[in-house]
Amino acid sequence: MDLLSKIGSYNFLVEPFHCDFSNHIFIGHLGNHLLNAADFHSNERGYGMDYLNSVHKTWVLSRFVIEMNEMPVAYERITVDTWVENVMKFFTSRNFAILGSNGNALGYGRSIWAMIDTRTRQPVDILQERDGLITRYIESEEPCPIAPFQRVKVAKDAEIHQTIATHYSDVDVNGHINSVKYIEHILDMWPLSWFKTYRLQRIDIAYVAESYFGDTLHFAVEQRSDEEYDIMVLKSSDNGTEKKEVCRCKLKFVKK
Amino acid sequence: MDLLSKIGSYNFLVEPFHCDFSNHIFIGHLGNHLLNAADFHSNERGYGMDYLNSVHKTWVLSRFVIEMNEMPVAYERITVDTWVENVMKFFTSRNFAILGSNGNALGYGRSIWAMIDTRTRQPVDILQERDGLITRYIESEEPCPIAPFQRVKVAKDAEIHQTIATHYSDVDVNGHINSVKYIEHILDMWPLSWFKTYRLQRIDIAYVAESYFGDTLHFAVEQRSDEEYDIMVLKSSDNGTEKKEVCRCKLKFVKK
Repeated sequence: MDLLSKIGSYNFLVEPFHCDFSNHIFIGHLGNHLLNAADFHSNERGYGMDYLNSVHKTWVLSRFVIEMNEMPVAYERITVDTWVENVMKFFTSRNFAILGSNGNALGYGRSIWAMIDTRTRQPVDILQERDGLITRYIESEEPCPIAPFQRVKVAKDAEIHQTIATHYSDVDVNGHINSVKYIEHILDMWPLSWFKTYRLQRIDIAYVAESYFGDTLHFAVEQRSDEEYDIMVLKSSDNGTEKKEVCRCKLKFVKK
Repeated sequence: MDLLSKIGSYNFLVEPFHCDFSNHIFIGHLGNHLLNAADFHSNERGYGMDYLNSVHKTWVLSRFVIEMNEMPVAYERITVDTWVENVMKFFTSRNFAILGSNGNALGYGRSIWAMIDTRTRQPVDILQERDGLITRYIESEEPCPIAPFQRVKVAKDAEIHQTIATHYSDVDVNGHINSVKYIEHILDMWPLSWFKTYRLQRIDIAYVAESYFGDTLHFAVEQRSDEEYDIMVLKSSDNGTEKKEVCRCKLKFVKK
C-alpha cells in the first residue's frame, strides 16, 4: 500500500456563529476543528475510529494543549495541519499547526492519546495494531514551537468556583460529557468583561476520567497570577457526595 | 449584472462532535447550518450582511421553523438548499430544504427576517434596499411542504421550569444571546432518557426581543400533549425582578 503524506492538511471556514462577541472563534470550536482534523487524518491512514470501531477499540484523548498567537475571525479560511509526532506502547502524541489563509501560523496544538478496548475499557498496545501501521507515519522533524504539556496541580480543597448540572447537549456519542464542553464550561466562569481585556493565549488540559449525563460538575480554581489559573473539574453523582476528579486544566491569558 | 440562480445549495459535513449520544446532529448545530446557508446565499447575491454592514443595517431573525423526517448522522454529507420565498416591506420569508447525500429530503425549514438600521434599531423598508435587488431573487414555485409558522401562546403565569444565567459562550458578535443557544437551552430541560424514546420532529420559534450577557433567562413551559410543548423564554436583569419576553417556542416530539 502506498503511504499518504505524513502531515494531513484540512481546511475550515470560521463560521460566524462559532465566534464570540469580539468576532474571534470560540476556543471550543477551534478545539473541535483540531479534533476533526485528527479524526480525518487517522481515518484516511487506516488507524482512525472507522477501523478501530470495527475491532472494538477507540482512541481516548488524554492531554490537549492549544496555544494561539492570534485567534482567527469570522469567515477566515484556516488550515489545520496535523501529524503523529511519536508513538509508544500505550500513548501517541499528535501535533497541530493552525494556519491563516496566507499560510501564517496562528498557533499550534499538542495532544496525547491512548487506545482502549471498548469492551474491557483497558488500554491496548498501539504498536500491535495493524502491524504497527501508525509508526510508518511518524513525523518527528516538523516543528511544533510550543512548550510540551504543562502539569497542573490543584489542591483537592481548592475553592469550588462553579457547580453545574450536566445536560443533553453536553453528551457525545460515547455517552460521555464531550471533551470540549469542559473547556466551554471552564471559560464560562469568567464574565464577558474579562474577555474584553484578556484573550486566552494557551490552554493545557488533562483528561483523567469520564463524566456522564446526570453527574454534577464542580470547578475548583486556584489563581497563579493575574493571568494564570489552574482548574480542577470534579464530578459527583446523585447517590453520593464524593467528588472524583474528571480533568484538570491550566489557562494562560494575555492582555489584548 | 447577471443574476445567480435563485436557489443556493451549500454542502456541510455532519461533524461527529456536533452529534448527540444517538449519533444524530444536535438541532442547534443543524440550525446553525441553515443560518450559515442563509448568510452565504444572501451575501453572494448582494443583500447579505457583507453589504448591509457597510450601510449600518442588518438582518434580524424573527421566526424560525425546522421540521425533520430524519436527522442526519455523523459524517453524513448534507446539502442545504435555500431561497427567498417572498419579500414585503418589512419582512422577507426564506425557506430551506435539507437533503441527504442521495438528494433525499431529510426535512425543511422556514424563516422570517426583518431588516433594521443598526444605529436606530428601527425597521427599514427592505424593498428600498439596492433598488429592490432582493425581489429579483424571489422563488415562489419551489415547494416547502411543511406548515407555516405555528403561533405559540404561553400564559405569563405558566410554571417556570428552568432558570439559568447567561455566559460568555452564549453571546454572539452582536452582543446578544445567540439565536440557536435558546434552542440548546430549551432542549436541555429534558433528560437524556427522554431523547432515547423521542426525537424532536418540529420546532417553531419566534424571536421577540434580544437578551444580553448578564440577563437571567426563565423558561416557562406548558404541556399540550404527551409530545407537544409550548415554551416562553423570559429575561430579567440584575437590577429588577420584572420579566420580559425574549422568545417563544413550540416543540413537537415523535416516538423514535
